[in-house]
Amino acid sequence: MSDEQRAVTITEVAARAGVSISTASKALNRRGQLRNETRERVFAAANELGYQPNALARSLVQRRSYTVGLLSTESADRFNIPLHLGLENALGAGRVAVFLCDGRADPERERFYLESLLSRRVDGIVVTGVRTDARPPLAGVPLPVPVVYAYSRSSDPGDLSVLPDDEQGGRLAAEHLLAAGRRTFAHVTGPPEYAAVRDRLTGFRAALAEAGVPLPDERVRFGPWREEFGRAATAELLAGLPDVDAVFCGNDLLARGALDTLRESGRRVPEDVGVVGFDNWGVLAEGARPPLTSVDMDLQGLGELAARRLLSLIEGNRESGLVRQPCRLEVRDSGGGPAVR
Amino acid sequence: MSDEQRAVTITEVAARAGVSISTASKALNRRGQLRNETRERVFAAANELGYQPNALARSLVQRRSYTVGLLSTESADRFNIPLHLGLENALGAGRVAVFLCDGRADPERERFYLESLLSRRVDGIVVTGVRTDARPPLAGVPLPVPVVYAYSRSSDPGDLSVLPDDEQGGRLAAEHLLAAGRRTFAHVTGPPEYAAVRDRLTGFRAALAEAGVPLPDERVRFGPWREEFGRAATAELLAGLPDVDAVFCGNDLLARGALDTLRESGRRVPEDVGVVGFDNWGVLAEGARPPLTSVDMDLQGLGELAARRLLSLIEGNRESGLVRQPCRLEVRDSGGGPAVR
Repeated sequence: MSDEQRAVTITEVAARAGVSISTASKALNRRGQLRNETRERVFAAANELGYQPNALARSLVQRRSYTVGLLSTESADRFNIPLHLGLENALGAGRVAVFLCDGRADPERERFYLESLLSRRVDGIVVTGVRTDARPPLAGVPLPVPVVYAYSRSSDPGDLSVLPDDEQGGRLAAEHLLAAGRRTFAHVTGPPEYAAVRDRLTGFRAALAEAGVPLPDERVRFGPWREEFGRAATAELLAGLPDVDAVFCGNDLLARGALDTLRESGRRVPEDVGVVGFDNWGVLAEGARPPLTSVDMDLQGLGELAARRLLSLIEGNRESGLVRQPCRLEVRDSGGGPAVR
Repeated sequence: MSDEQRAVTITEVAARAGVSISTASKALNRRGQLRNETRERVFAAANELGYQPNALARSLVQRRSYTVGLLSTESADRFNIPLHLGLENALGAGRVAVFLCDGRADPERERFYLESLLSRRVDGIVVTGVRTDARPPLAGVPLPVPVVYAYSRSSDPGDLSVLPDDEQGGRLAAEHLLAAGRRTFAHVTGPPEYAAVRDRLTGFRAALAEAGVPLPDERVRFGPWREEFGRAATAELLAGLPDVDAVFCGNDLLARGALDTLRESGRRVPEDVGVVGFDNWGVLAEGARPPLTSVDMDLQGLGELAARRLLSLIEGNRESGLVRQPCRLEVRDSGGGPAVR
């Protein structure tokens, strides 16, 4: 919401028109019995002050539509499910309804949905994505409603973005494996172009460094987010570093691949090598051999956080920048260490 | 948006009906003064050309809220993502907006959302679930708006439900494995309380019977939808039926377990044993060793179908009962047979 639009209230319109607030409201809502001259005076005042159409819209029905838009800008992803659940939790079942739009990584489609949402007079918009890297702000122009970016990050520092704390998540993995007495660490992760990949590595490496444990570059393998790469990268690691005793993987698919290669190379997990994944993707983690210990980003909590911040913005509060929500560790069997808080 | 939908424009409808575009628009929008004969000619042309939902959606301006509710009655499931995408495709990006509500298998929450949707005057509701078994109709009383059940089935025969054709999907699996020359079949599947489990087995068994291939009951293993069960059931099967050369699994998680056990028992897939899964869950099927051939329910298509039927009901057409949409086979490596249409 731009400052200008926010500044102009019905009180100001009424004052400028020299009428009561109730009369101004009736005029703007096109309700009640008013003389044409009065009505026109109110509209003139509204125009002069730049009392904008969306504000008019809000004023029509209790000033709000009690709807918000959830705009997934990337193609649909399972990440959206817990985000949506969290959003619903925080918005209060049924009190604020959620329009869901899937932009499918198509900027034209995204603009189209944005217009649709605005024409439906949503009270606010949550933008979700599948990457934590900065992206251009929605529409590229000031919008008449507040926007929160969730698991998505606006490049405009004036916008508000809520993200998982990937760096702290990387720390959790390191601390868990260190606590189990591991000393020879490796990391198999996604493409280095992902901010999440770099952040997780940063936290992982920092926690190891604090414990005096090195992580040379050759023990960090970047590649696609796929099981095959998890298998291949782990095989390469084992060839060059046969006494590796801890592998942190950037997601659970990579960890599944790592577990398979470790088992097939004769390593026992967690006795010989501890493995920690990232995402805590239920069926993958539970079906793994052994069941996979994994960092959980609490996406549902992230959805709730985004919704609470959006409601706060809708209330008129101002907030911008970046909010990082902590991750937690879901301890199963593969790490071999005790639970880390 | 499918090619079909994209192909047919109001210009073509007008040409086919032998009227001006303006007249065609009036007819389809139910506006203006037109002779009944003209109006009917336009509708006939629209039907012949398959001028479907998007156009109809546009035609309903001013008599509708242009919103529909998507009410997931079970707890959130990845099945909902393609269903939602299909719904969006058929509703026309932005023209009809979708309220998404997650009932989380809680009847009280479901009722609450239903009331919320009705108070927002949605034009119709799509109910989705995670089971194809009959469920009580929404609310249990006649509703003021049309409802379509998608991947969910109303026990009221007066309701309209659209489901994947699980029986035909089971047939596809059998035909694919038979075409590869398999003769000793087994089936590892989910709990028999699921209609989908029984339907897939029925189709699978029927296609085998037609080929003169038996499937005795002891070669059918029912259990939880989990990888562990896929592994354990396959190990049991191998113990009793060492020359099994074809395993059809009721979902991809079970198939992943079956592939692991087969490989670890020294069987080559597909050379010694062919395996077919069900769901065509991308990351699981692609990451499998070998990549998994799997029956695809085309959930996005199912969402489109549900949306088209809902728009038809909103138009005032009456339709009830059960629509079964065919499955298709995604052929990768594990089946070893040629593609089945």
